[in-house]
Amino acid sequence: MSGSTFGNIFKITTWGESHGSGIGVVIDGCPAGLTLNEADIQAFLDRRKPGSSHYTTQRKESDSIEILSGTFEGKTTGTPISMFVRNTTQRSSDYSEIASYYRPGHADFTFDQKYGFRDYRGGGRSSGRETIGRVAAGAIACKLLAELNISVAAYTQAIGNIEIREPERLLKDIDLEEARANPTGMPDKEASLKAETYLKECMENLDSAGGIVACRVSNLPAGIGEPVFEKLDANLAKAILSIGAVKAFEIGDGIKVATANGSSNNDSFRMNGSSITKVSNHAGGVLGGISDGSELLLKAYFKPTPSIFQEQETVNKNGENIKIQIKGRHDPIIVPRAVVVVESMTAITILDLLLQNMTARVDKIKKFYS
Amino acid sequence: MSGSTFGNIFKITTWGESHGSGIGVVIDGCPAGLTLNEADIQAFLDRRKPGSSHYTTQRKESDSIEILSGTFEGKTTGTPISMFVRNTTQRSSDYSEIASYYRPGHADFTFDQKYGFRDYRGGGRSSGRETIGRVAAGAIACKLLAELNISVAAYTQAIGNIEIREPERLLKDIDLEEARANPTGMPDKEASLKAETYLKECMENLDSAGGIVACRVSNLPAGIGEPVFEKLDANLAKAILSIGAVKAFEIGDGIKVATANGSSNNDSFRMNGSSITKVSNHAGGVLGGISDGSELLLKAYFKPTPSIFQEQETVNKNGENIKIQIKGRHDPIIVPRAVVVVESMTAITILDLLLQNMTARVDKIKKFYS
Amino acid sequence: MSGSTFGNIFKITTWGESHGSGIGVVIDGCPAGLTLNEADIQAFLDRRKPGSSHYTTQRKESDSIEILSGTFEGKTTGTPISMFVRNTTQRSSDYSEIASYYRPGHADFTFDQKYGFRDYRGGGRSSGRETIGRVAAGAIACKLLAELNISVAAYTQAIGNIEIREPERLLKDIDLEEARANPTGMPDKEASLKAETYLKECMENLDSAGGIVACRVSNLPAGIGEPVFEKLDANLAKAILSIGAVKAFEIGDGIKVATANGSSNNDSFRMNGSSITKVSNHAGGVLGGISDGSELLLKAYFKPTPSIFQEQETVNKNGENIKIQIKGRHDPIIVPRAVVVVESMTAITILDLLLQNMTARVDKIKKFYS
Amino acid sequence: MSGSTFGNIFKITTWGESHGSGIGVVIDGCPAGLTLNEADIQAFLDRRKPGSSHYTTQRKESDSIEILSGTFEGKTTGTPISMFVRNTTQRSSDYSEIASYYRPGHADFTFDQKYGFRDYRGGGRSSGRETIGRVAAGAIACKLLAELNISVAAYTQAIGNIEIREPERLLKDIDLEEARANPTGMPDKEASLKAETYLKECMENLDSAGGIVACRVSNLPAGIGEPVFEKLDANLAKAILSIGAVKAFEIGDGIKVATANGSSNNDSFRMNGSSITKVSNHAGGVLGGISDGSELLLKAYFKPTPSIFQEQETVNKNGENIKIQIKGRHDPIIVPRAVVVVESMTAITILDLLLQNMTARVDKIKKFYS
Repeated sequence: MSGSTFGNIFKITTWGESHGSGIGVVIDGCPAGLTLNEADIQAFLDRRKPGSSHYTTQRKESDSIEILSGTFEGKTTGTPISMFVRNTTQRSSDYSEIASYYRPGHADFTFDQKYGFRDYRGGGRSSGRETIGRVAAGAIACKLLAELNISVAAYTQAIGNIEIREPERLLKDIDLEEARANPTGMPDKEASLKAETYLKECMENLDSAGGIVACRVSNLPAGIGEPVFEKLDANLAKAILSIGAVKAFEIGDGIKVATANGSSNNDSFRMNGSSITKVSNHAGGVLGGISDGSELLLKAYFKPTPSIFQEQETVNKNGENIKIQIKGRHDPIIVPRAVVVVESMTAITILDLLLQNMTARVDKIKKFYS
Repeated sequence: MSGSTFGNIFKITTWGESHGSGIGVVIDGCPAGLTLNEADIQAFLDRRKPGSSHYTTQRKESDSIEILSGTFEGKTTGTPISMFVRNTTQRSSDYSEIASYYRPGHADFTFDQKYGFRDYRGGGRSSGRETIGRVAAGAIACKLLAELNISVAAYTQAIGNIEIREPERLLKDIDLEEARANPTGMPDKEASLKAETYLKECMENLDSAGGIVACRVSNLPAGIGEPVFEKLDANLAKAILSIGAVKAFEIGDGIKVATANGSSNNDSFRMNGSSITKVSNHAGGVLGGISDGSELLLKAYFKPTPSIFQEQETVNKNGENIKIQIKGRHDPIIVPRAVVVVESMTAITILDLLLQNMTARVDKIKKFYS
Repeated sequence: MSGSTFGNIFKITTWGESHGSGIGVVIDGCPAGLTLNEADIQAFLDRRKPGSSHYTTQRKESDSIEILSGTFEGKTTGTPISMFVRNTTQRSSDYSEIASYYRPGHADFTFDQKYGFRDYRGGGRSSGRETIGRVAAGAIACKLLAELNISVAAYTQAIGNIEIREPERLLKDIDLEEARANPTGMPDKEASLKAETYLKECMENLDSAGGIVACRVSNLPAGIGEPVFEKLDANLAKAILSIGAVKAFEIGDGIKVATANGSSNNDSFRMNGSSITKVSNHAGGVLGGISDGSELLLKAYFKPTPSIFQEQETVNKNGENIKIQIKGRHDPIIVPRAVVVVESMTAITILDLLLQNMTARVDKIKKFYS
Repeated sequence: MSGSTFGNIFKITTWGESHGSGIGVVIDGCPAGLTLNEADIQAFLDRRKPGSSHYTTQRKESDSIEILSGTFEGKTTGTPISMFVRNTTQRSSDYSEIASYYRPGHADFTFDQKYGFRDYRGGGRSSGRETIGRVAAGAIACKLLAELNISVAAYTQAIGNIEIREPERLLKDIDLEEARANPTGMPDKEASLKAETYLKECMENLDSAGGIVACRVSNLPAGIGEPVFEKLDANLAKAILSIGAVKAFEIGDGIKVATANGSSNNDSFRMNGSSITKVSNHAGGVLGGISDGSELLLKAYFKPTPSIFQEQETVNKNGENIKIQIKGRHDPIIVPRAVVVVESMTAITILDLLLQNMTARVDKIKKFYS
């Protein structure tokens, strides 16, 4: 079967392995007439680039994007947009050892079980580099959403048990510049410094840390999302859980709803001039799987990087119990570089459902074709 | 667009409204040769039937299933299985009032925003009755999985802040009979009694409660799930979030991973005789989106029933702020009746990916066709 | 896998067997706000009803449609429309004999090969009755297209080697009333009478006949159809070939293009006032898989009914060569009743691509959401 | 919407324009373990390469394939296979003129109508170069089918009204070497020479010619194809009509069935030792949309190349009627180079349905997972 395609109308297909020729993505279904050049994409890719702080791998990856098709005279043409980042700094030798055993917390074992063998160099297809394609596509989705005045932004909400202050702020009140300047991705200087201390500690212990990425979508019109199985939040959950290392997903109040009561969890409606608004937003912007006009809020829980430098136990190809010590260059935390991945997957999902929604009503279809 | 279809190979399409003729489901892609009769389905439906305790709505719904196609001489034929439950006890008059306003926490507002109007009787398509189709399909998925010795079972993990003891037990150690006998769905008599007390309190306060449903899959072979976007956990997340009232999803340790370290979160591999096993299961049975042979564990967080009998604030059709008091028959908690829905959606997802996995390897395809 | 679903946005799923409870269809993705009642559907179904002439089976099938979901107060709600025709006049005894052998020209053998056994009563799922679901859905597609001033109409072009006069007439010049009044479906009295004579001859010979159905779509806007694999004509070809007994498909000049030259086959463009038109229409309304604003023309070639009353040779369950004589009630020709099926599949395909086209351009999306 | 993806399990996505960076294809869902290198693909691409005879364009295109992902140590890994052919010999200047008008018989007009503008260089996405991606994917599909002893082969059946002798021969009796050696693609020296004479005549007249490509699949097991909408022949029809310039599709006897009678068109079954065979094959290997074990036969009717050197009438951007004379390098006939495209699309379709069929029966699923 085929797991490398996401979306129905704005449909992306990613390909590539950590240590092959490169990583790519084909976007089929991008509407025609969007102004687009490589710098639009590169800006997004640079946000996931390693080597930019102490807490990301010291591998240098230039990750330069090339648009191979789908644009003409600076605009999208409606035909597939193929984008390619050539792998340049692979040191496969770092990985030759892992060919013989299964790294705990990685997909080595499951790929072997599924396919009978695997490209073991740097995790192959299950490497974090696979997200390059998602981010390149996310850059385009965000740009198109911006044309509709819809903003999507993700940031680090927590690292270990250090959380940002006032996490319930609306997007307009979050200092995204701060978030992008801090090596943690947190929009809160103080929390970020604390988190850095914690990360240094983890590194000294040859260990790694987890954390939470939050993502908000403002100005999303009500009515987006399809009832029953293609709910907005269901699609977002899939999009987010498809990112390696995510182990939980929340929309709105998320896990807190299990201990809440209806009286406190329901969001009342109120007239705001001539428009209807909710006075609170426990729902996180979704009712019955359809956007309700409030700000969308989701959270992704990331596990600690599985590649740690402590000694670990595992088995090798010959069916022997062994002890291993992983080498190479690995992030002590996934979260800061994953922020733009969460933002990208959210944008792609939102855009796809926004396009799907255009066919919901006969009166609007008639107007469109008149 | 079309949101009422789920799955790629074992593909289900549900239809029907709370107060229309009935609720149905068509399963296209059920393999031929499965012994099946209506009693197999009815047993599952009876588990979601209302009126069976104080904590479920006192509406009496017989919910008798009729298989309209796809079986012959007691076996599935490989053609679409159409199943139908006729609505019998609708009292639309209970709902006539809600035509004029938007109930907080419900999809009334968003359906109107999307479609321009709505079938307001009992929530129409966004009613919990929609899950009848899922459960009927889930019964078949479970039966087919049982043929492969795979067990799927869900139960109530928590109601409000009352949790079952030893929630980390393996499926074989969970008393499912107890869970099904208790009105709460908890496999723990003591916790269940406490939860009942809490629910009575909520009802006295004209309020409602939330909770957590856990689901485990045992004996799932390694290798199920497709890399990148069609990961096993990503598909489960979508399946579970597509159930109305679910606001969070966890796989394995879930939200706890954000505060864990790699050294404690990684599951080591160890030889167990001639087979490879993990010594712990923080991952919840999935590595890189592919099943790893350990028990699968997921959790769904349900919000409190939005229909509460306290006075609430909202707006009406004329754009006026009003106060409302919801009438009718409503569960004070969704969780106990949702257990079988979570189990069904999990089974459907697992089965679909298990079928998809059959085409992963050339050697196995050659053997299949030889 | 799942073969009973057609379409991406206006998505239909049919189910049911010739001699089961009945035949049904679920349409998911029908836009909200279309005025619809059962009479709209029944009018279409009546056009495929048997028993209306000498040249259709003398079985009496009432084929009364019931809409089970998806409408409220006389309009579609945007949720799945489930429709059901109960089987009433099955005489399974007629078919008991065919359980033991494979009828030539039927799918008995291939169903057994695929599924290991089959519902042999009246062909089961491969019966012509399966098209009831298509026609019910087609009625809705046609009604929605009519709202956009797009007309779809099919008629019999030929029976055996008797063809209608001036088959190249535009839709507006074809006498559809005549076509529907004639038992052959031909819009040409004279040809129809000749065809009747031929059919009587076939019946006397205990034989059956084939023919051609043409379908035209007028007023289709230019721009419909997606490049490369989802071309308008490619989708129509699939739609038409999915009808049992169709063995060839043509668009525009069809097979004649193989012997034409570019100079005669190209359609020149010419200004017609301020709009661009083609001076001829060899292409049949499609260029590069996208509608060009000219009338769409397709043709479907139907094989003779495989159930003939002559003695035939085949094999039985025990692997013995036998001679058989088919009994029961069978049309001597499929074509007249298939006209409305071709029309329905064409309408469903056109509508689906018309909805898909709404997301092709950024400027139109911005206007839609402004 | 997204038209550049074909297939459900063996899923291909093509991208690229005639005069952009290049042409590519991503195959998602190719089973793991297939021995594969670039020479396997190049052999197929060389069959569609221009410049190899008088009757193909004199453009020199090297069309060298690069495999960018999805293989490791000479075998497919189960992850997406990305392949790329860089454009090298584009002379965009040849095309600058066509920016201002619509070429008759081309998609210039319809792309403008759909997307608001177009990449006019060499037809952009609607260029015949798009088929490079299909052929690269087809090479892999054919290689995998060969592992299952299934042969797919296409050849030229007719050019203009010159047809090969004994077109009804089985695949084993067709001289494919002859077909590939002849510039016409015909497996018949004599017919080929006649066709060459005809083509020279067309070229002298500054005109172009059409023709017929036939494709046969031998040793296809019975049972392939899904009932109702995903019939084998319906999918093949879509696959073939998705090739630019195809205007008609036949399976088996095709258009001839319209004038046949049931008695002559039905294929009788007969025991052949212990296996069941058909004594004739009017059906072309498909009954009820499912393969019947006989040889599959389809035909594709190609229109004459629309780019002819005669003066033609059309309109320009300013809405003026003009006369044009197309320049550049264009094949006088599409057919010889299209043979491998038909073969590729057939192989891709067959393989995809063959993989889908693996989930049809419970007994086989149980065996697979035991």
